[in-house]
Amino acid sequence: MERSISPDSILLLKTAQATGVTTAWDRYEAQLPQCGFGETGLCCRHCLQGPCRIDPFGVSGPKYGICGASADVIVARGLARSIAGGTASHSAHAKHLVHTMLKFSRGEAPDYSIKDKDKFYAVLQRVGITRDGKSEEELAGELAQLALDEFSEREDPPVWLKTTITPARMQKFEQFGLIPSGLDSAVAEVMHRTTNGVDADAVNILLGAIKCAVGDYTGMYLATDLSDILFGTPAPVMARANLGTLKENAVNIAVHGHNPVLSEVIVAQAELMREEAIAAGAPAGINLVGICCTGLEVMMRHGIPTATNSLSQELAILTGALDAAVVDYQCIMPSLPTVASHYHTAIITTMSIAKITGAHHIEFDEKHAGQKAQEIIRLAIEAFKKRDPAKVNIPPVVNDAWAGMSAETIVKVLALVDPQDPLKPLVDNIVNGNILGVCLFAGCNDVKITQDKTFVELVKALAAENVLILCTGCASGSFARHGLLTPAATEKYAGPGLKAVLTALGQAAGLGGPLPLALHTGSCVDNTRAASIATAIANKLGVDVSALPVVATAPEAAMEKAVSIGTWAVAMGLPTHVGVVPPVTGSPLVVQVLTQTAKDLLGGYFIVEPDPKAAAAKLVAVLKERRAGLGI
Amino acid sequence: MERSISPDSILLLKTAQATGVTTAWDRYEAQLPQCGFGETGLCCRHCLQGPCRIDPFGVSGPKYGICGASADVIVARGLARSIAGGTASHSAHAKHLVHTMLKFSRGEAPDYSIKDKDKFYAVLQRVGITRDGKSEEELAGELAQLALDEFSEREDPPVWLKTTITPARMQKFEQFGLIPSGLDSAVAEVMHRTTNGVDADAVNILLGAIKCAVGDYTGMYLATDLSDILFGTPAPVMARANLGTLKENAVNIAVHGHNPVLSEVIVAQAELMREEAIAAGAPAGINLVGICCTGLEVMMRHGIPTATNSLSQELAILTGALDAAVVDYQCIMPSLPTVASHYHTAIITTMSIAKITGAHHIEFDEKHAGQKAQEIIRLAIEAFKKRDPAKVNIPPVVNDAWAGMSAETIVKVLALVDPQDPLKPLVDNIVNGNILGVCLFAGCNDVKITQDKTFVELVKALAAENVLILCTGCASGSFARHGLLTPAATEKYAGPGLKAVLTALGQAAGLGGPLPLALHTGSCVDNTRAASIATAIANKLGVDVSALPVVATAPEAAMEKAVSIGTWAVAMGLPTHVGVVPPVTGSPLVVQVLTQTAKDLLGGYFIVEPDPKAAAAKLVAVLKERRAGLGI
Repeated sequence: MERSISPDSILLLKTAQATGVTTAWDRYEAQLPQCGFGETGLCCRHCLQGPCRIDPFGVSGPKYGICGASADVIVARGLARSIAGGTASHSAHAKHLVHTMLKFSRGEAPDYSIKDKDKFYAVLQRVGITRDGKSEEELAGELAQLALDEFSEREDPPVWLKTTITPARMQKFEQFGLIPSGLDSAVAEVMHRTTNGVDADAVNILLGAIKCAVGDYTGMYLATDLSDILFGTPAPVMARANLGTLKENAVNIAVHGHNPVLSEVIVAQAELMREEAIAAGAPAGINLVGICCTGLEVMMRHGIPTATNSLSQELAILTGALDAAVVDYQCIMPSLPTVASHYHTAIITTMSIAKITGAHHIEFDEKHAGQKAQEIIRLAIEAFKKRDPAKVNIPPVVNDAWAGMSAETIVKVLALVDPQDPLKPLVDNIVNGNILGVCLFAGCNDVKITQDKTFVELVKALAAENVLILCTGCASGSFARHGLLTPAATEKYAGPGLKAVLTALGQAAGLGGPLPLALHTGSCVDNTRAASIATAIANKLGVDVSALPVVATAPEAAMEKAVSIGTWAVAMGLPTHVGVVPPVTGSPLVVQVLTQTAKDLLGGYFIVEPDPKAAAAKLVAVLKERRAGLGI
Repeated sequence: MERSISPDSILLLKTAQATGVTTAWDRYEAQLPQCGFGETGLCCRHCLQGPCRIDPFGVSGPKYGICGASADVIVARGLARSIAGGTASHSAHAKHLVHTMLKFSRGEAPDYSIKDKDKFYAVLQRVGITRDGKSEEELAGELAQLALDEFSEREDPPVWLKTTITPARMQKFEQFGLIPSGLDSAVAEVMHRTTNGVDADAVNILLGAIKCAVGDYTGMYLATDLSDILFGTPAPVMARANLGTLKENAVNIAVHGHNPVLSEVIVAQAELMREEAIAAGAPAGINLVGICCTGLEVMMRHGIPTATNSLSQELAILTGALDAAVVDYQCIMPSLPTVASHYHTAIITTMSIAKITGAHHIEFDEKHAGQKAQEIIRLAIEAFKKRDPAKVNIPPVVNDAWAGMSAETIVKVLALVDPQDPLKPLVDNIVNGNILGVCLFAGCNDVKITQDKTFVELVKALAAENVLILCTGCASGSFARHGLLTPAATEKYAGPGLKAVLTALGQAAGLGGPLPLALHTGSCVDNTRAASIATAIANKLGVDVSALPVVATAPEAAMEKAVSIGTWAVAMGLPTHVGVVPPVTGSPLVVQVLTQTAKDLLGGYFIVEPDPKAAAAKLVAVLKERRAGLGI
């Protein structure tokens, strides 16, 4: 199998091979063949009597676990625990921002401020906090406390849920018992239900897992709100992508992980420490680049280049020009220090809950954020001094990439066409068929399939069918690296209707050309930005999201977080494509619930299709079905 | 391998074989050989790129997961997730009681009351709620709210932690970052840390897991407090044990699971519905028995017989005389409806989060508790009418068993000897060597080893060495079924010093003979009862628990809950024996931290030893080492 279609990845994978450095792709090959029980979800280790496994063929092997759990129960339990893992991750990210805001409100986070007052006031109003002449700190404190309460066991529905979805959806969630009693408690509930001897009805387990995923949505919405308030709502910005954004004549520092809480301070400090880098022998000063979602966060707010995605994070080190990788949490390979041991690169962990054996650890705290960022940058400058010029091997691959297409940005651009009713131009163009529908691209790269191939082929196929493309997380990164976040890509790949709309909007925005083919709506945690647009359209039309020609796809999903996101997308009423087969095929019942029953209950459902062309055809058919349902 | 040494189990396993009914033991055999990667903890499924596995021999197979996780990281992650599963289970149990108390305080739980006012006032005082002429409902509301806050992300240490451990232990927990920021958030934090790309330092992961287990302790303490307040603190009661407690001439209903919140109401209603059962043809009326911990809860509060433990729960159906099993949650085999399909037994699930495919579901709620209990009992009476007398096969095995040896009971008995200083007789007898030390027996039965064999051999060996025995959960059940909760067992098995002490106490208590060989301190969730005695002794002596000659053992551990309990026992400073090998042997580092490093950090540590005689020798040596440390 081809490992990647990304030219910079391809070049550096050759370097890895030549120098004998092991990467995720090599480790994947070493795992082949992978365990069939795990692949089908038919393995259970939820008690010490196991491991148990079920014979997928139902012939000579066991049909039940020791406790009597069936294939259905075992598969549902496993899926539920991955959703709990994903939800816990996003919620922790959100909670971290809540604590930052709480510290700001108490004067304990001197390097932070309310950067976006408009968003601050808008969120306060949405969640029901009155301003009444209170100070910014007081309001921030109230908001943080309200946000913190979302994590707790509570009697009222989460505020960030009930104020952000359609009334019809809220009613549906009430009807099916899908409103979590709190974000952390939703995770804990799944862990309880899936331990030995608790829930043994696969459908009931899945409903519990969906409830947890609704908690995931809630935490993600909260995280995006707080990030925007503290760091600014993304506005259109031209940035660059690929590993060619590393500079031979600069101290190259990659910020990697997910939470902007540290990287924002690094961005600010790097500016101030430019002279130190020059003095150390780097005439171009400090060159910050991004990896994974922390990278996308600073890309969309500051135009920092995105060097690469999670799957290819090791390759950044193989350029020989990366002086430091500063990581927070999630999707960070434990292998980084090992790869870095072949080079001069400093791997710097920063969070108490995410250390890596062999890395430098500089523990971050908001109270001394600036000082910690300086320490980190100084360590990078020290590492730069040890860089071996002979090993420098930066692939000459750079692409332009527009970022910052937040929901607010999209509405602002639309308002240039119709200031009174900004959504009208979008709705009109959906109704008149210029736009067939909307597709949100999300999710990871997955080592099991050729990097970026499904992303790129699928997006081109859908754009040709006039599907408006939003993207987040690794999808944004992938499209950026392939030049698809550009007006040129619109010219090249958009169908005529879509091209006309994007061109009209781009001209209204003064770009002198179309908007990019795909709109970089944010990082992975920002998927609710796209959901909020769908909800706004649904509310405008007086229908539920499940009636709209809107679909989602995670063509190269890899992480537990992708599983929880995909699940809430389904819960919100979106047909959701996945391009890798999740470990559920061991249970025909679970497969049926996820791909069929869910449609009857929630409107959304999963579509599993590894082939990009077939996936495009299925998604187009779904959009047409939805259009027919609306009579358009 | 012999399946069980319990005579009633042995008889009914023959019945199972003769009638072709499959039990957990058969399903275990069908799983053999179990997967070696799972058994050693060297399998990871925490993302969609897996399953990954590590070659335990480090020869030809993979040394790292795809992400680069080492054997150490993978093993630590897996262990941490089991601890999260265990903690989530106990916390959910506790939270359920909190909600019941909250409903009581609002007049929404008419079938509940403050049964034990002394305990109520004692707990209020301990947690710092002043009474000030408030009504019982108001106080209950305040207590419930304070308890609910324990689950939330919070800045202060949990109240049920800081008010129940020694100051030195609290300081140690602060020093090592082992104070959870909330019970649910502790679970969520582990789930985040163990997802792909977060914590990749095995020791750091283990510290996070221990923190979560400290949350487990906290939730368990809370659960016991609330159960005692709502249902009464257990006092000495003579009950009976084994499957021979089922009656041919009665409607036999087993209450099974863990939470007394439903079973207490069933006990009350069964009394009232006696005539209905007689009218249905059961001259002896309704015969309630217990299975697993729900059974132990009603045993210690009402003298309801304990029929059997979790591992042998299916065998209760094979008596042909069980008319209904009413289950709440945890340790309930999904196989029950399948086994019941060979008989007339009604399997009745009652909790929304714990359904079983094929069972009757009568959803319980506190508002209509009495009515729901009646529905359940009526269903049992209906099932009784379908009982086939030809299939009735009750093993003629019954043992006496003293229960109700709560911490309060133990102190009361000691106070009969020294009313001014109740702990003094116990401490004096430890100092003078009559009692070598104290051992808490806890944990499950595990199908991987002969049922009850390790329990019984180990307890006899330790009692002969004058070790005072406390027991909870399946240990209590096991000892009950083997006649070890009796004065006669003390006469037979206790060493001379222990016998003298138990006899003196028994005579002071007016028993005319010794206390039972093992003191049934409660159900599985009640392990903190034993911890509270250790803490009281430590506080009296002005030392930490880690200095005391006190050990714990889970000789036949099976559940995730046992893993979390064992881990907090270690955190509290107790050397903790486990008789089955947990899935950690794939990481020498993890094994070393759990069995050695933990001793340096916390005083407590794990001792893994499947052989009961060798285990006894090791525990005796540990107690002697602890005594030497105290200079006694």
